[in-house]
Parts: sequence; C-alpha cells; structure tokens
Amino acid sequence: MIPERGKAEDASVVVKNKRVPDPSHRFKKQIEFVLEVDKLKQIRRQTILMDRSRRENSAEHSWHIALMVSLFAEYSADSDIDLMRVIKMLLMHDLVEIDAGDTYCYDDAGRQDQTRREEIAARRIFGLLPEDQASEMRSLWDEFEERKSPESKFAHALDRVQPFLHNYFTDGQTWQENNIASHQVQDRMRPVKDGSPALWEYVNALIEDAVERGLLDK
Amino acid sequence: MIPERGKAEDASVVVKNKRVPDPSHRFKKQIEFVLEVDKLKQIRRQTILMDRSRRENSAEHSWHIALMVSLFAEYSADSDIDLMRVIKMLLMHDLVEIDAGDTYCYDDAGRQDQTRREEIAARRIFGLLPEDQASEMRSLWDEFEERKSPESKFAHALDRVQPFLHNYFTDGQTWQENNIASHQVQDRMRPVKDGSPALWEYVNALIEDAVERGLLDK
Repeated sequence: MIPERGKAEDASVVVKNKRVPDPSHRFKKQIEFVLEVDKLKQIRRQTILMDRSRRENSAEHSWHIALMVSLFAEYSADSDIDLMRVIKMLLMHDLVEIDAGDTYCYDDAGRQDQTRREEIAARRIFGLLPEDQASEMRSLWDEFEERKSPESKFAHALDRVQPFLHNYFTDGQTWQENNIASHQVQDRMRPVKDGSPALWEYVNALIEDAVERGLLDK
Repeated sequence: MIPERGKAEDASVVVKNKRVPDPSHRFKKQIEFVLEVDKLKQIRRQTILMDRSRRENSAEHSWHIALMVSLFAEYSADSDIDLMRVIKMLLMHDLVEIDAGDTYCYDDAGRQDQTRREEIAARRIFGLLPEDQASEMRSLWDEFEERKSPESKFAHALDRVQPFLHNYFTDGQTWQENNIASHQVQDRMRPVKDGSPALWEYVNALIEDAVERGLLDK
C-alpha cells in the first residue's frame, strides 16, 4: 500500500516509499522531519518586528538568534565554549512549539503545564528522525532546558535578549499591551546575567531608560 | 547631538550613544546590525509554505536550511567539511536581499543585474559591523557565491533542495503559476549534484515523478 501524500494544513506530509532511494528508510524519516518542521513558521510569538508591521514567528526568531551567536560570542560569560553547539541548540530549541504552541513569558497560567506539553511534543517531533539523530536532538534540547552548561547559558542569554531588543526599540509596545512592570522584565532577563554579563549590563541600562520614559511600569 | 531612534518602516534604527557601555562603539555597531537584519523577515520568496497558506520569507528559509545542515551532513559530497562554516554561510547568505530583494530563480531579466545589486547591498549591510566582523561576513559571502569550496557546494545544495521540496510537496503550485518546465528545474538544481550526489539522485526521481503527474511541463 502506498501511503498518501499529505496536503491538508493539519496533516503531516507522508513521503512515498518509492521516492526514497534508501531502503533503510533513514532518508525518508529525515525528509519527513524537514517537511514537518516547516510548521514552526506558523507559530506566532508576542514579539513584534522592528517595523511593527506584524508579530514575529518562531522560525524567524530562531534564525535571528542563531545569527547573533558568532557576532556576540565575545560577550559570552565563558569564553571557551563550543559555538556550533550553541547554534544547533538555538536552531532547534523552539521546535516543540509546533505541538505545544508558544507560551507568552508573562502568562503564568500557561506556563504551569508548559513543561508537560513540551515534553510530549519533544517525544513526537524528535521521534520522527532516525534514532541517532533523534537522540542527539533530544540531548541538545535537554541541555538547553537545563541551563547548566556554559553553551546553554549563552544560548539562553541570546534567546532572551533578542525579543527584549525588539520590545525596547519599538517603544515597549508589547510591554504596554500587556501592562508589564520593570521587575517582570528584570526577572525574565535574569538568565542573561549568567550567560553574558556584558549584555546584562546593557539590558539593565535599557530597562532603566524604559521606566524613565514611561514604556515600562516601575 | 543625540541621533534619533528610528521607528518608521523605511528607517534604520539608530542606537543612542549613551545606551552603549562600550566607548569604542564596537557594541553599538553590532546592535545596529542585529536590528537592521530584522528586515530579512520582510523579504518574500516565491516558495510557498507546506500548508500553502502563504509565501515564505528569507529569514524562515535561512533558518530551515541551517537546521538541515547537521541532519543531511552525511549526504555531503565531501565528508570532511567544516559544518559550522556551512551553517554560518546559510544564516547570512540572503542578507543582501534586504537591499537587493529576492530575485526569482527563473526571472532571467531580474537576474541580469542581480550581481551588481547584491554587491552594493553587501557593502552597505556587512559594513554596519565592526571591521573584523564585516570582513569575516564578506569573505563567507564571497565563498558562498563563488561555489568552489566543499562547504559552499554543500551549502548551495541545501539552498536549492529546500524550495524544491516545497514545490514538489505542494503539487508544484509555484511551478504551475510560472509555467516552469522540467529542464529549467534541472538546470536550477545542478549545484545539488556537486554538493550532494545522494540528494541529486532524489531530486531527479522527484522531477521525473512531477513530469509524469503533469506538475511540471516536460
């Protein structure tokens, strides 16, 4: 039986066996994964683009922070880190949102079952890959989530700094829409301190300025 | 004089000097670059998303192919390549489109002055960075464009394969909209052969199938 090619918005794409040169189905799994992760382009975040025309999606966000890795490497708390692992983490860290959705960082209710939802998502999505690659993805994601290695700390710093820059340089539009106070932003930005003291100093200067200008509640 | 903070769609963001802890302005330049490249999220490509809901933009495309690097590394023509350089190339290869726009690969007229337009764009956009980083970006981009190193060949293979997969798995919608024939796709896909013989074999099987099914003119 030849599996049907998926085409509906809600169906995953199924790659026909006869199109796959590798009888082990390794290649078929890799292609299915590549087609599946396209859905990250549909996951909308709270962050707005710099020109304020629309909200950003998680694929764009992942691209932006992956590009920042080499540029900001000199500000990493630990100067001797594996930048390739940082980039790989950032390229895949949001894939679980394909099933679990993006949880707004100041949505306390939504964050309560976020871990459970993302855990289930990780199992399904990484599980599409051949076993060796699934397990590499999974341990990269675990490393990111645990936030213990120097690589994951720097990755978190960039993951938090980018939306912060968008907020600040669009005059705090999403902060104001959601009545965010400076202490909430400061709490949210705390991982920047661990990953990059230099960026943390900059973030604090901008928070102070945002409060002075009334973009953030004190 | 304090430069104004940009906010219009057409203005670049100017970072206030007093917000920058580094008197050398190195950091200021890096932040301005990060804010400027946000515009890549506005550059629309011909490729449609897998669910056909809209066209893809160049930031999403860049994320997708950067993610593919590790997954498909085993299919690279040259097994001994620097994957980090491939990823860095792919993350930045389309930045010139911020000024030069995306040129549809089958638009022969548009492609005639593409090189000149992109050259001017590269000078302005990479030139936002501190000199050492500008020159690293520039040589990565040159390496990509020249398509001579094994890294750049593999990068090109992925850059071509991803939109091809989108076309094929959305039943050739953009091929049909633009009356594309199979020999045009084959020409366009030629760099895949150099970068990844295994992916080239797969691409050819799919082209053949697309012709059989009437998705592509013979």
